[in-house]
Amino acid sequence: MTPPLTLAADQNSFARVQARSAELERSIAAAPESFRVLTGDRPTGPLHLGHYFGTLLNRVRLQQAGVEVLVLVADYQVITDRDRGEDLPEVVTELVLDQLAAGLDPERTTFFCHSAVPALNQLLLPLLSLVTVAELHRNPTVKAETAATGDRPMSGLMLTYPLHQAADILFCGANLVPVGRDQLPHLELTRTVARRFAHRYAPVFVQPEALLGDAPLLLGTDGTKMSKSRGNAVSLRADEDTTAQLFRRAVTDSERTITYEPQRRREVSGLVLLGALCRGEAPEDFAAAIGGGGATGLKTAVTEAVNERLRPLRARRAELAADPTIVREVLRRGNAVANEIAGHTLDRVRTAMGMRY
Amino acid sequence: MTPPLTLAADQNSFARVQARSAELERSIAAAPESFRVLTGDRPTGPLHLGHYFGTLLNRVRLQQAGVEVLVLVADYQVITDRDRGEDLPEVVTELVLDQLAAGLDPERTTFFCHSAVPALNQLLLPLLSLVTVAELHRNPTVKAETAATGDRPMSGLMLTYPLHQAADILFCGANLVPVGRDQLPHLELTRTVARRFAHRYAPVFVQPEALLGDAPLLLGTDGTKMSKSRGNAVSLRADEDTTAQLFRRAVTDSERTITYEPQRRREVSGLVLLGALCRGEAPEDFAAAIGGGGATGLKTAVTEAVNERLRPLRARRAELAADPTIVREVLRRGNAVANEIAGHTLDRVRTAMGMRY
Repeated sequence: MTPPLTLAADQNSFARVQARSAELERSIAAAPESFRVLTGDRPTGPLHLGHYFGTLLNRVRLQQAGVEVLVLVADYQVITDRDRGEDLPEVVTELVLDQLAAGLDPERTTFFCHSAVPALNQLLLPLLSLVTVAELHRNPTVKAETAATGDRPMSGLMLTYPLHQAADILFCGANLVPVGRDQLPHLELTRTVARRFAHRYAPVFVQPEALLGDAPLLLGTDGTKMSKSRGNAVSLRADEDTTAQLFRRAVTDSERTITYEPQRRREVSGLVLLGALCRGEAPEDFAAAIGGGGATGLKTAVTEAVNERLRPLRARRAELAADPTIVREVLRRGNAVANEIAGHTLDRVRTAMGMRY
Repeated sequence: MTPPLTLAADQNSFARVQARSAELERSIAAAPESFRVLTGDRPTGPLHLGHYFGTLLNRVRLQQAGVEVLVLVADYQVITDRDRGEDLPEVVTELVLDQLAAGLDPERTTFFCHSAVPALNQLLLPLLSLVTVAELHRNPTVKAETAATGDRPMSGLMLTYPLHQAADILFCGANLVPVGRDQLPHLELTRTVARRFAHRYAPVFVQPEALLGDAPLLLGTDGTKMSKSRGNAVSLRADEDTTAQLFRRAVTDSERTITYEPQRRREVSGLVLLGALCRGEAPEDFAAAIGGGGATGLKTAVTEAVNERLRPLRARRAELAADPTIVREVLRRGNAVANEIAGHTLDRVRTAMGMRY
């Protein structure tokens, strides 16, 4: 039972994780085949530019480096904080299409769904025996997500989801998990249950390490965090006109000269950063090129940068979407791979726990 | 969110369950093929006379009546309140042997283990989304079992086990569950999640009904509740000498005349009841036959009654135990049946939840 982290301890351990991530990047470059990455998303809506720069590009980068990547469609996690998913088959299809279009190659990367891998889900049971209810209640992400869902009482699935996430990582022996800072407590819990299982039974599970991303926080067109539910996000799948329309309504300010000053000019700088990322430029250069063009010039430049950047992705996406059997086949094959891995792991878990009769 | 039951409401609902159980018994007699029973045990030790008269005979009776019976070996539930099971393969084998010897016929009754049925265990996830954490904490059995394990902090598996038990019942569409009064809250929770699933998605699950047993509370040889851990229980598999030895150490009193007075002579009456049940006699008659024989007469009579009653069971048990492939094969076939049923149910659950891609 560890006490809650103090801020200083948190800073220290964060610095350690950062240093370790840099080391891991060097190891990936040297021996990519010794890494297996587990990553994934809740299928709650189409991916947007925030996902693209925040996680998608990193997944593609790891795949291209030669790391084995497994991408989970966490469909059971949709119902932690809502009664049911909206049109899951469509949302799941779009989610996979977004990722294929972004460059994840199903020949090299495995896509699978929670609901299709019973042996993975079974692992939740032994894992539940390795933590106390008090530890589950202490999880900061559970607390935060509960606060975000307002007055809705916490469901049993919400309380236990960090352990389900641990099962996602442990079932496939992933040794690397790309995370943001706020997800570090999850990974720590995963490492803890892996250690406890080893201590109580046998060292079946790999203790995964965090690969911290350096993705910038992207703001939406209203200057707040980019998010589908806020209506301020550029969907990867949106067409060019819709994208232009979204930027026409963007919040800016009345200064004619466009600059990159995130503290003083939050909304304008958010747009500048988006454009600069899309062009692969420094935000200062992107702003300077607009110069005295004002809000209109900025909106035009960002729209062009985004549409230009996403044009090949969107074209590829349209091709893939034209044949509905493609995603079905990607998931069918990925689910089969995940089931085989999960079956092997569950066998080893049963043996370690003495459950062979 | 129902408020906690008041005592009066509890009495009322108990009376209703009793009346309904009597009705169900008549339906079983009239149309046994319309019932499927789920029952089972935690494999924590060999079965004893308390289990025999409390549940085993009832299982055999239902099987003989023509009801389909599924018997679960709840191996994951062993680790709700302890780090690991002791020699699970042996305990599970003995548990199945006890039941086969008592008359459960593997041609008609399905034996299966939690750890062998991933699709059953997967159901825990959707079920967890249907209850609040507050409801889990309110479960009286969880509270009681936690109190019984002393200062050990409650594990996540303990908090969620009533839902896992719900999955055991719901996965196979059991419409009848033999229970004692203290297990009624579990069954109510099972019915609740079945209803909630139907309300949110589709009526996939059968709402099971309680079949209340009229089994007497059996006391061990020290006058307290019969229990392996108290060392006061007659194991079904014990030999006749060990049985005799146990009764020689039994607690009695100094009155020479043996009578059946449960309130005034707790220990002596407990022994009388055991003997009477074994002989199929009224306890008063069993006591009268011993008359002035005192404690020694009582112990001899009970030992004989028990050994005589268990003789055919023990002989059959020894035969079955001689061939270790028998239990393995019973479980292999039962697990296959349970997996097939669970697979069908999970398919319907996925369809109802829109998780078909």
